[in-house]
Amino acid sequence: MQTDELFMRKALDRARLGEGKVLPNPMVGALIVRDGRILGQGHHACYGGIHAEAAALRDCREDPKGATLYVTLEPCCHRGEGKHNPPCTDAILKAQISRVVISRLDPNPAVSGRGAGILRQKGVEVHCGILEKESARLNRVYETLICTDRPYVHLKAALTLDGFLAAADGSSRWISGSESREKVMAFRSRCDGILTGRGTLYADLPSLTVRHPDNSHRNDPQPARIFLSTKGHIPGDWEKPGGPVLVYHDRSVSQPGCPESFQFTPVPAGENGLSLPDVLSDLRRRGIRQLLVEGGSRVYGSFIRSGLWDRLTLFIAPVLLGEGIPFSDGLDIGSITSKLHLKDVSSVPSGDDIMIDGYREALSCLPA
Amino acid sequence: MQTDELFMRKALDRARLGEGKVLPNPMVGALIVRDGRILGQGHHACYGGIHAEAAALRDCREDPKGATLYVTLEPCCHRGEGKHNPPCTDAILKAQISRVVISRLDPNPAVSGRGAGILRQKGVEVHCGILEKESARLNRVYETLICTDRPYVHLKAALTLDGFLAAADGSSRWISGSESREKVMAFRSRCDGILTGRGTLYADLPSLTVRHPDNSHRNDPQPARIFLSTKGHIPGDWEKPGGPVLVYHDRSVSQPGCPESFQFTPVPAGENGLSLPDVLSDLRRRGIRQLLVEGGSRVYGSFIRSGLWDRLTLFIAPVLLGEGIPFSDGLDIGSITSKLHLKDVSSVPSGDDIMIDGYREALSCLPA
Repeated sequence: MQTDELFMRKALDRARLGEGKVLPNPMVGALIVRDGRILGQGHHACYGGIHAEAAALRDCREDPKGATLYVTLEPCCHRGEGKHNPPCTDAILKAQISRVVISRLDPNPAVSGRGAGILRQKGVEVHCGILEKESARLNRVYETLICTDRPYVHLKAALTLDGFLAAADGSSRWISGSESREKVMAFRSRCDGILTGRGTLYADLPSLTVRHPDNSHRNDPQPARIFLSTKGHIPGDWEKPGGPVLVYHDRSVSQPGCPESFQFTPVPAGENGLSLPDVLSDLRRRGIRQLLVEGGSRVYGSFIRSGLWDRLTLFIAPVLLGEGIPFSDGLDIGSITSKLHLKDVSSVPSGDDIMIDGYREALSCLPA
Repeated sequence: MQTDELFMRKALDRARLGEGKVLPNPMVGALIVRDGRILGQGHHACYGGIHAEAAALRDCREDPKGATLYVTLEPCCHRGEGKHNPPCTDAILKAQISRVVISRLDPNPAVSGRGAGILRQKGVEVHCGILEKESARLNRVYETLICTDRPYVHLKAALTLDGFLAAADGSSRWISGSESREKVMAFRSRCDGILTGRGTLYADLPSLTVRHPDNSHRNDPQPARIFLSTKGHIPGDWEKPGGPVLVYHDRSVSQPGCPESFQFTPVPAGENGLSLPDVLSDLRRRGIRQLLVEGGSRVYGSFIRSGLWDRLTLFIAPVLLGEGIPFSDGLDIGSITSKLHLKDVSSVPSGDDIMIDGYREALSCLPA
C-alpha cells in the first residue's frame, strides 16, 4: 500500500506538468512499474495530445507485459465526437498490464466507473482511491466543466477585517498588499475571462489585464474582459489595451454601448439584474472555461445567491474601515443557522494579508 | 553575541513563569553566568515578591563576583511608595557583577535608562537590546499600565468573512467554532473584567464567566462583569452566578437599575454614549488591569474611535451572511487612505476559524 502511494505521488507530480495546458480535459499522470522499477511514465501534456496512459506505455524501454499501471484518473473507455484519442482501456489490455492502480474515478458520465469495470472484466486487478483527494483537488475545474454547461466560476475579492470592499467614498486602492495583488495576477493568467460589474467598472476603471510586477503586459494572450451592465453603458474614457471586451446588457435595451470593438450581448434581466445562467452559458459557448469574478457587491451577491460559483478567494487585509461598501449586497440569509459555510477552506499568509480560499462544494471522495 | 542570545532566551523562559501572577508589575527573568556556566537563576514570581535579579543572586551556589547578569528588563534603581523591593542596581553592585546584559530598558519613567546609567557609572559593562522584541512582547500589558491610568483594553470578536457579528435577526450563536470559544475562555481567565454593551446584554443574555469545556464554572475568582447601559437598564431575568457586576450609566439618569448586588456608577455621557475615559479610569481605580471587551457594534465603535484600546483579536469564521450586524457602528473613516492599520499582526488557525491578532501600536524597539 505504501508503495502504491509512493508511485501514485510520482504520477500526480507528472499530472501537474499539464497545468494550464489541457482544459477542458483533466490533468492526468501515469507510471508503469514492475518489481519496484519504473518502466515508463507520461502525462497528458496538452489539449488534443495523447493521454497519460498512452504516453507512459510509449515511454517504456521494455515490454510492460505483467506490469502495474499507476494512473491519477480512471482510464477512458469511450470513443466520441470531438474526442481525439482512442480508449485507453484498449491500450492497457493490449499491453497486457496485469494490475491498474487508479487514484480517482472519472466523473465524466461517459466513463464514471466503466473504465475500471472493463479492465476488471478482462481479468486486470484494479485498485481505486489511492490519494484520491489529491487527484480530485488537481482537477476541480475539469470536474465542474464536465458536469455543467457553464464556466468554472472563481470569485476573488480583497476585504478589510470588517468585511468592506471599499471605503464609504468608493475608494479601494489599495486594501490588500502587493503580494496579494501579485497572486491576483497569477489567477488572471490562468483564467480565460475576468468579469466585473458596472459599478466597479465606473468606480475603478480597471484594465483587467495580466501584468508583470513592472506593470507591463505579458505576451500571453490576455483573458477576455466581461462586463455586466444592464443598460449597456461603459465609461466613455474606458478603452484600454487588453483582451476582447464582452458586454452583457438587458435585452430590453435596444441600442446599447459605444465602441464597435466591444461585443454587446443581450440577455434576459429580472429584479436582481441580468440573468446569470444566460450570461454563463453564453460565455461557455464562447470558449470561456475559467471565469474570474472581480466584484463588486452586486455581482458577488448575484453569483452567490444563485449558487453559480465554485471557488471564493478572499484577501483579508489587517485593516478596519468601520463603514464602506460591503462584500455583497445581501445573500437572503436572515438567521445565523442559515449561514453559508465555505467548504475545504484553507488559509495562508499573503504578505501582511491572509488569503482565505474556500469552495461552494466539498470534494467528495471515497472514504480513505 | 550568540552566547548572549542563548542565555537571554533562557532568562525569557524564566520570566514567563510569572505569567498571570505579577501584574501590575512586569514579568522578568534573570540568569547569572560565568565562563558559560549558570551560577544562579530567578524570576519575579508574584506581585510583591522579590525581583528576578535578587532571586538569581540568592540562587547562586558560589560567589557571583565578576560574573555576567542576564536580565530581561532593566534593573530598577528607585525606592518609592508602594514599592516592595530595594533597588536591584544596589544588589548588583554589591555582588560585584562585572557585566550586565539587558533585553529591554524599563519604560517606567522612574527607571527608563537610569538603571543602566547607574551601573555604567560604577564601571559595570552594560549591553542593551538583546532579544528586546521578545521581552517587549512579553510585557505589553505592563508597558500600557505603566504609561496610562486606564486598564489594558483587549477587544475580542467573532466575525464572519464578510465582517458580521450577528445575522440580521440578531442571532450569533455560533459564528465561531468550539476551539475559538475555548480560546476566549483562556482570554477571560487572564482578565480582571469583561465588558459588554446594553445591546449585546439584551440580545444574548451572556453570563460572561470563565467556564470549563463542560460548561461548569472554574474555581478561580471570576472576572468582574461590566455593562455600559446609558439608562442603567439590565434585563429583568439576567442575574447569573459569576463575578461582581458593575453597571455604568449616564449620570443624568437619577434612579437606574434593579438588583442591589449590582454596583451602579454614574458617568458623563455625550452623543456617542458614555464617556469611556471616565469608565476606564474608574475601572482602573477599582483594580481592573486587564479588560476584555466583548461587543457589540456600538461598544467596539466607541473604543476604537476614541483610541482607547490596545489589542484586537478577531476569530474569523469561514462563513458568509451577506447582511447582519456589522463589527462596528462606524469609525469615522471616509476614504481608503485613512484606513486603520493594525500593528504587529499575527494569524493562526483556530479549528475551522482563523484567529487574527493585532495591536493599536507597534512595539517600539531599538534597531536590532
